[in-house]
Amino acid sequence: MTPLIFSPEFGLFTLGTLGIIDLIAATTNAFNGTLLARSPSHYKHFTIIGVALLGLAGGIGGGTLRDILLNEVPAPLVNPWYVFFCVAAILLALLIAYNAGEKFRAGLLSFMTAFTLPWYAIVGADKAMTHHLGYGAAILIGVIGTTGGRWIIDLSCMKIPQQLVRGEFFVGTAALTALLYIVLRFSLGVDIVLATAVAVLFGFGFRLLSLYMGWEEWEPSEPDELRAGEKAHHSLSVDIHEEFEER
Amino acid sequence: MTPLIFSPEFGLFTLGTLGIIDLIAATTNAFNGTLLARSPSHYKHFTIIGVALLGLAGGIGGGTLRDILLNEVPAPLVNPWYVFFCVAAILLALLIAYNAGEKFRAGLLSFMTAFTLPWYAIVGADKAMTHHLGYGAAILIGVIGTTGGRWIIDLSCMKIPQQLVRGEFFVGTAALTALLYIVLRFSLGVDIVLATAVAVLFGFGFRLLSLYMGWEEWEPSEPDELRAGEKAHHSLSVDIHEEFEER
Amino acid sequence: MTPLIFSPEFGLFTLGTLGIIDLIAATTNAFNGTLLARSPSHYKHFTIIGVALLGLAGGIGGGTLRDILLNEVPAPLVNPWYVFFCVAAILLALLIAYNAGEKFRAGLLSFMTAFTLPWYAIVGADKAMTHHLGYGAAILIGVIGTTGGRWIIDLSCMKIPQQLVRGEFFVGTAALTALLYIVLRFSLGVDIVLATAVAVLFGFGFRLLSLYMGWEEWEPSEPDELRAGEKAHHSLSVDIHEEFEER
Repeated sequence: MTPLIFSPEFGLFTLGTLGIIDLIAATTNAFNGTLLARSPSHYKHFTIIGVALLGLAGGIGGGTLRDILLNEVPAPLVNPWYVFFCVAAILLALLIAYNAGEKFRAGLLSFMTAFTLPWYAIVGADKAMTHHLGYGAAILIGVIGTTGGRWIIDLSCMKIPQQLVRGEFFVGTAALTALLYIVLRFSLGVDIVLATAVAVLFGFGFRLLSLYMGWEEWEPSEPDELRAGEKAHHSLSVDIHEEFEER
Repeated sequence: MTPLIFSPEFGLFTLGTLGIIDLIAATTNAFNGTLLARSPSHYKHFTIIGVALLGLAGGIGGGTLRDILLNEVPAPLVNPWYVFFCVAAILLALLIAYNAGEKFRAGLLSFMTAFTLPWYAIVGADKAMTHHLGYGAAILIGVIGTTGGRWIIDLSCMKIPQQLVRGEFFVGTAALTALLYIVLRFSLGVDIVLATAVAVLFGFGFRLLSLYMGWEEWEPSEPDELRAGEKAHHSLSVDIHEEFEER
Repeated sequence: MTPLIFSPEFGLFTLGTLGIIDLIAATTNAFNGTLLARSPSHYKHFTIIGVALLGLAGGIGGGTLRDILLNEVPAPLVNPWYVFFCVAAILLALLIAYNAGEKFRAGLLSFMTAFTLPWYAIVGADKAMTHHLGYGAAILIGVIGTTGGRWIIDLSCMKIPQQLVRGEFFVGTAALTALLYIVLRFSLGVDIVLATAVAVLFGFGFRLLSLYMGWEEWEPSEPDELRAGEKAHHSLSVDIHEEFEER
């Protein structure tokens, strides 16, 4: 009567190439979200259920927002493999968070923040284009898919969303990856696997390079009244800068 | 030309059993949300309109998120009775918030927090199953329907969402109620009224018992660097614990 | 293969009257959102991309939430002109934020806060009515369309949402404008251009008058235990009041 979790209808092989990329996006982002929820910058006495929910929000949040915008039932809810792989990734991340040293965890989080970036950007851009939306909307949906989970996590942890402040081209990498994929796949007609491979390598590499070189999105010079107001907010601003410096 | 508020098309009797349960969910959650918005832990100099909006978010927020995920126009917007009953519940809660003593209000809020829990869990799980989603997604949608309103309220009041921190099995009760209902209704084929009655009694009873016995979701033991960070956040952590102890 | 940004399919002339009103709503709200993100009350060391994202959230956030509730692909994503005009408005606002004096900026923000209010209220109410929702839901969707972008901005800037606290009839103006438009257009059958003109003049005028006269939504008298709690939150409450006084 009801769809079983592993019915052939929902087999891994029915996902198609884009579905597999989407599943990689959800799984890696759930892993990353769990590490983030357990990191000193975000942890706020969460329960184990709370950390898992944040991991799940990181994993399927972006894909869910994307599909809501495209007026579809979110793929992560339709196909049971998303929740299955996300739960596995969350458990693995919790295991590592407990048994690994702090340096390893911080390094892993940096690496994963780069590695998780390109996947949702590619799927969001592809789905938006096949829904006949324009280039601008496709890049925007790529960015929302990539960074939407982080927005939910940051708000829930009472942090200024990472999209808005300096973070080594977090939004920029997502937007450029989406744009590159769109040009390769939809303007030049490159095969989906090749276009994905190039876009993933670009996104991953550009983000790692940004982290390594300390490239940052431009922070506007501040009008005088903001400088005046800054003193009141000083501890927060220092906090934010220190947080970035730590990572 | 336009649907009247009380046109027969939107009569109470056309709602069906699940619709009635959904209406109970919305009404009781609007009552609970209004009490919460006026409680010392959440109140932040809101206007009367602000309190009413938070009550409405508590009442129809969860059901609206659920229906967005299921790719439907939200039932609370389609059928005017939802807003009608929610507004009545908000007015009643405001009346009580003014005329009752503090002890009575706190007790009522505890009672309502338990009483409001099972309804949306049941409707969310039922609707997800009839949309042919898997067990995992049905439980997730049950939890989102039940606790989504609270997430909106907590974020708007600058509080760490109740889902993430200790709160006497807030998420756990919703998930178990959804699971019990799914097993009764979709695996064992129990009648909707009986399945609902059993699930409501279970959810309400389990939550009351958790509140009474002080059962809590497990908070992970903290790595050293989080303990170090804890000192900086001490006032917040104490605040949160005190808040739970108060309730 | 893919829709070009300026293909005739997405020409400005295919938008229709309601689409033009929606485009005005998005553009003016993007301008307003950018100014808000750069104002001392909201600015939190955002990057230029962060400010632009907040401007975009202000511009298309309300319309996007509205269309999600109506179960449509959001118009601001379907028609490329929305993003085009929003980006232009964001650039203009950034230019003004840099080159204008503080007094001019504050005055412009006040003026725009009034001028941006009626448009989304009208479109939201109209679309909800043509989707056969009731009066209550139509006013609610008008309010969500009008103020949803601000909710996203305020949460992202860690501010108590403007809807909930005193703000010279922010929600009230949106609700009354939506109600007036519904009565004119759907009860009295007035032409869309005339109904819009009257509702815009009313909403703009009522809001300006509220700002000028200091009209405020009613803040409930506070029970004793909230007064006691107030001392702890004193700096925030003073902050909020000062912020309103400044504007």
